[in-house]
Amino acid sequence: MKSLVFNFPSPSPLGALITQGMGAEEGRFLLKSFPDGESYLRLESPVKDRSVFINAPLVHPNGWILDLLFLSDTLRAQEAKQVVLVAPYLAYMRQDKIFHPGESLTSATFAHLLSTHVDSLITVDPHLHRYHNLSELYSIPTTVVHAAPLISAWIHENVQDPFLIGPDAESSQWVKEIAKDLPFIVLNKTRHTDGHVRITWPQEVNIGNKTPVFVDDIVSSGETLLEALAHLKNQGTKAPICLAIHPIFAGNAYEEIKAAGVHKIVTCNTIPHPSNQIDLSPLLLKALKEFQQ
Amino acid sequence: MKSLVFNFPSPSPLGALITQGMGAEEGRFLLKSFPDGESYLRLESPVKDRSVFINAPLVHPNGWILDLLFLSDTLRAQEAKQVVLVAPYLAYMRQDKIFHPGESLTSATFAHLLSTHVDSLITVDPHLHRYHNLSELYSIPTTVVHAAPLISAWIHENVQDPFLIGPDAESSQWVKEIAKDLPFIVLNKTRHTDGHVRITWPQEVNIGNKTPVFVDDIVSSGETLLEALAHLKNQGTKAPICLAIHPIFAGNAYEEIKAAGVHKIVTCNTIPHPSNQIDLSPLLLKALKEFQQ
Repeated sequence: MKSLVFNFPSPSPLGALITQGMGAEEGRFLLKSFPDGESYLRLESPVKDRSVFINAPLVHPNGWILDLLFLSDTLRAQEAKQVVLVAPYLAYMRQDKIFHPGESLTSATFAHLLSTHVDSLITVDPHLHRYHNLSELYSIPTTVVHAAPLISAWIHENVQDPFLIGPDAESSQWVKEIAKDLPFIVLNKTRHTDGHVRITWPQEVNIGNKTPVFVDDIVSSGETLLEALAHLKNQGTKAPICLAIHPIFAGNAYEEIKAAGVHKIVTCNTIPHPSNQIDLSPLLLKALKEFQQ
Repeated sequence: MKSLVFNFPSPSPLGALITQGMGAEEGRFLLKSFPDGESYLRLESPVKDRSVFINAPLVHPNGWILDLLFLSDTLRAQEAKQVVLVAPYLAYMRQDKIFHPGESLTSATFAHLLSTHVDSLITVDPHLHRYHNLSELYSIPTTVVHAAPLISAWIHENVQDPFLIGPDAESSQWVKEIAKDLPFIVLNKTRHTDGHVRITWPQEVNIGNKTPVFVDDIVSSGETLLEALAHLKNQGTKAPICLAIHPIFAGNAYEEIKAAGVHKIVTCNTIPHPSNQIDLSPLLLKALKEFQQ
């Protein structure tokens, strides 16, 4: 029997590529709200004894996490062979420590929740900073796909003479993995008491005629990137390219970054966004093969 | 040490009455959103070894259920003595059966979720229709408070010569409990293929000069009540009173019912609403005493 891919909560270009690449069938379902705001969910595809994949980029998950649990529980109740969550973007990875007494370790609650409701998890470059491995958080088997090879390939094909820049220490792992033998620097970020960030550049750095390429895993508010860009503007370099794996772009972040003198913003398709130019489906499909035995 | 009451996600008049009546302290917390929409929660009251009550009317819970789980997990991580969920209105009780193949039994998923994250549950008149007891759904100890005595008392004090009307079979248990020796009828509801409801009145019913009092547990879309009211309008009775325990009033339901020739709409304060006139805190406080030993 063909595997099923449920694109949740709504269809996405990556979901379509995965479904097709797996030779799977798209899982059909009806999800609606009652007048009181409660959800109604009904599966329209038979799932018994089939491998089921839920493709759900977990950006802004608060409003629909309950629906995702309804879906996974219903798949289990109807005896799906396995329920695999494909979360190209994995949420709640950033509160990875109790920084101030009383704080909620949201990463732990979220991971426990998913671990309880699905059988395994596949994701792309989770924001592992203080955690070093998803197994510290997730009690189910997890598979991590790294976007670096395809981002590297994109740079080699599209950028002449690149100079990679990581805007802060957290970006370091991605910059190094992507740069390989290309030149790069990683900047320093400090967060001020007013909540704003300041980026410290090295005393001197010679980018020369190379193309600056900012690299980060997530762009959310864009504050870090904007701070880093502001400095570069005064250095007379070529207009930089901004590369990110997960394009969250909260609020007007995308517009603000575009307006900050960048040549191009390029992202991976983990979260649907107009800037998606690097298709990660080949890497995901390779990982998904393991589950289709 | 004083007990703590967290009013979640926001303060409510009932919450204030409960906190005061218990001689408890109000639990302080900070809940905010990051730019990417993820939640940040921090407890500001020390909770170690204290009994903690979360007062949360679970109306429209989808958007903040995750925050509630963050709260309860954080209370546990900080070693609260017990975490008691006071849900004056309990959500997801109506999908109590798989009516059509493939449907999600949302009542079960929701109950499992709460059972996993809190130690016990107190609620007011849950919509028990096909389930007969919360223990069929919830694996934690549950306490059910019945609003009937205070609704009966309100009717006796405020309505001369009442005639109670339950708009459909599901309302029957509440009508009977509230009516005691007062006259009442329970109408029949059928749901048409187009999704709309039709209410069937008895062939003849003599309300005479009595005051019609519609009684139901929940008013959500108000469709059932509006259908029942439409008939009464042509019978030349006194303007009816509409009584409900849980005032959800989805969309414009409240305005539409007011405009349907009713004399008054009166509800209990399980969900904050301008129509709240029956304060259930005395009944809840009695039940809460058991947890404060």
